[in-house]
Amino acid sequence: MPRTATGESSLARAVRILESFTLDEPELTVSEVARRAGLPLATASRIVGQLVEYGLLGRGPGREVRVGFRMWELASRAAPTRSLRNAAMPYLEDLHAVVGHHAQLAVLQGDEVVFLERLSARDAVVNYSEIAGRLPPHISSSGVVLMAYGPAELQERVLARPLESWTAETITTPDRLRATLDQVRRRGYALLAGHVHRDATGIAVPVRNGLGEVVAALSVIVPNDARAVSAVPALLAAARGIGRSLR
Amino acid sequence: MPRTATGESSLARAVRILESFTLDEPELTVSEVARRAGLPLATASRIVGQLVEYGLLGRGPGREVRVGFRMWELASRAAPTRSLRNAAMPYLEDLHAVVGHHAQLAVLQGDEVVFLERLSARDAVVNYSEIAGRLPPHISSSGVVLMAYGPAELQERVLARPLESWTAETITTPDRLRATLDQVRRRGYALLAGHVHRDATGIAVPVRNGLGEVVAALSVIVPNDARAVSAVPALLAAARGIGRSLR
Repeated sequence: MPRTATGESSLARAVRILESFTLDEPELTVSEVARRAGLPLATASRIVGQLVEYGLLGRGPGREVRVGFRMWELASRAAPTRSLRNAAMPYLEDLHAVVGHHAQLAVLQGDEVVFLERLSARDAVVNYSEIAGRLPPHISSSGVVLMAYGPAELQERVLARPLESWTAETITTPDRLRATLDQVRRRGYALLAGHVHRDATGIAVPVRNGLGEVVAALSVIVPNDARAVSAVPALLAAARGIGRSLR
Repeated sequence: MPRTATGESSLARAVRILESFTLDEPELTVSEVARRAGLPLATASRIVGQLVEYGLLGRGPGREVRVGFRMWELASRAAPTRSLRNAAMPYLEDLHAVVGHHAQLAVLQGDEVVFLERLSARDAVVNYSEIAGRLPPHISSSGVVLMAYGPAELQERVLARPLESWTAETITTPDRLRATLDQVRRRGYALLAGHVHRDATGIAVPVRNGLGEVVAALSVIVPNDARAVSAVPALLAAARGIGRSLR
């Protein structure tokens, strides 16, 4: 691929431009794109123009730029997450109908938790996860489940890093995180009350594929009270159903 | 952007490679990617390697290539469809819980109908739509709604083309399509029995934004029998709810 004087391919710069758009800021001016991608304005402007031409970016009425419909379509129609999501969706809906609040499906990506799907009731308890959003793994019940059944190296990497605190309940010491992971493996589920937000409890269980490997975490977010634990059997049953569909 | 001897930028070739992956064939060999993208094998192989490095493509265990997790994440977290989908999802779930079978949300893209979301029961009647899948607009109830309330030029373009037949009921003449569009505008909904598959009826209504513009079609697919029409009031109510959420 042709490279510029800086030694970087045009494709690499296009990828950096695509990475500028986030959950919280899906619309940016070209100047902001240039700043985030670390590119001169003229270069950013030219590549944005090409990406708009191919439909990977789109322009709004005020010339602001955002991810294009074609980009969404190309990523969604052949998404690597598609078979897992399709297998999980009917169970996620049942869980959501029975438990209410939020029902969600998450996977590990690098050392973080990414949410593939979330169904939410209109009057549900507070929840910070978003589809395609990321959370550090020690914060949420999904993350703790994915760590507990994940590779040992992931656990060591997370345990070696500072553990960010979100509430008074968040796990912030390696000892407590180790004890929590042991407990999750013994019980088969994670229940974290008030770790992400004081008012919410996250409960998560592992989803296994036909080989018995844990491929995802299925979770619900409910109010932080004594009834939260009653969601566990429904979660375990739904995770078994998803596992059967994956075979 | 640097261009090759053929005058085509590396970015253009990368986009053609991304377009090779489809709903039915999400995994391809590099040779198949080269063939579909119309590129020499060495060129395709080099660009695929770069796209894998950036996470826009991923490799399976057998060296087959597919859309990468990062591509899905970048497209989903800032998706142009996100606010419409978020507004619609609670209503789509309610509709699915009450009517059963399939509940779906579709928009026009170019001259085709693209499905943004679909919720399906496990034992639901046959349905050919898929998330991020396309259908010609005269085939389905969603398409007929989006045409009826869409730009006049779209109607003229579709009416001027041969109308593909999927079943004995599919609309295949311009006169019948015109009459159907008139009827949809009069009634406020489309009901197409057996047009996509003999056993299924599609019923769709328009979703309007705060300006009164039709921005999507909300539909259900139910068995092709006399009870199908009973879904209309629930659809109309849900579409009003989505419209209110969009304001």
